[in-house]
Amino acid sequence: MSAFRSIEWVDGGIVRMLDQRKLPHETIYNEYTRYQDVAEAITDMVIRGAPAIGAAAAFGIALTTHYSQATDVPTLKQELALADRVLRQSRPTAVNLFWALDRMADHIAAQDSHSISDLKASILSEAQAIAAEDVDLNRAIGKNALALIPDKATIIHHCNTGSLATVDYGTALGIIRMAHEEGKEIMALLDETRPRLQGGRLSAYELKSQGVPFKVIVDSASGFYLRKGIVDLCVVGADRVVANGDTANKIGTYNLAVVAHENDVPFYVAAPTTTIDMALQNGDQIDIEERPAKEVTTVGTWQITPDDIEVANPAFDVTPAKYITAIITEKGVVYPPFEENLAKLMGSDG
Amino acid sequence: MSAFRSIEWVDGGIVRMLDQRKLPHETIYNEYTRYQDVAEAITDMVIRGAPAIGAAAAFGIALTTHYSQATDVPTLKQELALADRVLRQSRPTAVNLFWALDRMADHIAAQDSHSISDLKASILSEAQAIAAEDVDLNRAIGKNALALIPDKATIIHHCNTGSLATVDYGTALGIIRMAHEEGKEIMALLDETRPRLQGGRLSAYELKSQGVPFKVIVDSASGFYLRKGIVDLCVVGADRVVANGDTANKIGTYNLAVVAHENDVPFYVAAPTTTIDMALQNGDQIDIEERPAKEVTTVGTWQITPDDIEVANPAFDVTPAKYITAIITEKGVVYPPFEENLAKLMGSDG
Repeated sequence: MSAFRSIEWVDGGIVRMLDQRKLPHETIYNEYTRYQDVAEAITDMVIRGAPAIGAAAAFGIALTTHYSQATDVPTLKQELALADRVLRQSRPTAVNLFWALDRMADHIAAQDSHSISDLKASILSEAQAIAAEDVDLNRAIGKNALALIPDKATIIHHCNTGSLATVDYGTALGIIRMAHEEGKEIMALLDETRPRLQGGRLSAYELKSQGVPFKVIVDSASGFYLRKGIVDLCVVGADRVVANGDTANKIGTYNLAVVAHENDVPFYVAAPTTTIDMALQNGDQIDIEERPAKEVTTVGTWQITPDDIEVANPAFDVTPAKYITAIITEKGVVYPPFEENLAKLMGSDG
Repeated sequence: MSAFRSIEWVDGGIVRMLDQRKLPHETIYNEYTRYQDVAEAITDMVIRGAPAIGAAAAFGIALTTHYSQATDVPTLKQELALADRVLRQSRPTAVNLFWALDRMADHIAAQDSHSISDLKASILSEAQAIAAEDVDLNRAIGKNALALIPDKATIIHHCNTGSLATVDYGTALGIIRMAHEEGKEIMALLDETRPRLQGGRLSAYELKSQGVPFKVIVDSASGFYLRKGIVDLCVVGADRVVANGDTANKIGTYNLAVVAHENDVPFYVAAPTTTIDMALQNGDQIDIEERPAKEVTTVGTWQITPDDIEVANPAFDVTPAKYITAIITEKGVVYPPFEENLAKLMGSDG
């Protein structure tokens, strides 16, 4: 377990989140009691990372339940439906948000008890299960990846996909962490990941605390090292993997994947199956969030650009499946043809 | 002419440079009277851009001449040789620095007058000629590029290659400026260009003052737009083009070129022939400068990363010729095979 938790439920009806906007300089935990504030925390990126925002949304539903004054089940369910709608609008790209809300909604719909207190207890327990399961999924991803990592490996990683992006442990960064814990000689090259600098701020913070050797690079320096022939593999997380293997992830993932491909360096996507969206056929169907200009014009309190200029700030891009060597899930490693093999993997759920 | 000059000689023996580290927030001109301080200004990036640092080095030689107490020509020539050695070590990658110092050295060697005052006048006039010629070269590059720019064009540009990177007008950014001045409907997507943010700070400043429409993007968002099919061409400058067409330029140029190539978008290098180094056969022979970690860990006064971490910060990368559609020079547009066609172009000098 990490020294910090990105998100947790505190007895008495509080959702506590580590404010990731302030890291690595300040370690501040925010406490939430209203689902509206949880939705805002997701939008403002107090919490980020596809699995973490899934857990946050589930806890948003649990908060609604906890504080509900409803005296009958139908009224409570109406309140929960409203919370669901608000939470669903907090961010558009990562599918885990919708997956977690769907799971909560299905769970709620399946409850036929007329007891308010039974329903409340069962909803909280479902949200806690989502959070707890995420940690197990991540460790399983790390284990499944071990065979793909040479004993001595230089690995490029984009964005942050560690404990902070999940409930704990991490997906792609979890793979790097586990390879290190298993005694492999790892050097991680961390893309700083403009504009929000999740690599330079958060992944550097995590790997430093875990004692994993790393160097921070600017995003556009990845090609310099790929062309040098010193990189063994790239590994990134995902905000949404669709049926044909196309993957939406943090802006810059596509550039990295193309340049890795051009240099014959394996490019892996690490994602729990909760990030796989079989309802979409290809990546062009994924809604890509455009975020505020200020993320680009300003770093911390420092304004970079002249005043009153235009900015384009897509938060994610889509990496076509043809650039992806394999997708590493908790259920196993999926290779091309992805359409066929993802269907098999997801179908095995039943 | 621009509202500002990156560098100029002021009567009485002063080299005045616009301090580009402070833009766009403060417009501060620094004055130099010692070649050692000019060398330091180049190293510290008060002035940057291959053509601009060529002119700065030539003026460094002129300053040495101006303030020399030598009473005979051999003593002056010894002082100049020392200044040459110091200036030559200021930055390693851009060949214009060496080109300008070689031209000054050749000029000095060719003087057989025994008059100190004649020699002094002639050296200053050669340095001024280097600066003046650069402006003409840039305008000629802009003219030669016009036929390559559609009447309505979205153009990705990396780093800063405008008036600030040259003595005036600019190379790649000069092309964008001229296309706009000639009435073409231009939208420039400016890579912000981490770590020093020459795009977000300097290119944005220049295009804003010229009224050219633009948007700033993070470097790793280029692929998002290239894959969308809305980009007509990319154009960048160069710090050194070698005999086979391989081109060293600001870190991130290689990533951009590979992703442009993958999306069949033309990728142009704009460079005066003073940037072409026929003495090197391929790009792997180019010395790539590694710059201080602080450029990556800090933006302005804002520290991004945790304390005491490792950083890798190569200032340039090499784009292999196969990703370059054409090289636009003041003498014309050079297409592949570059080895043959650059030799023809450069041979026509001699």
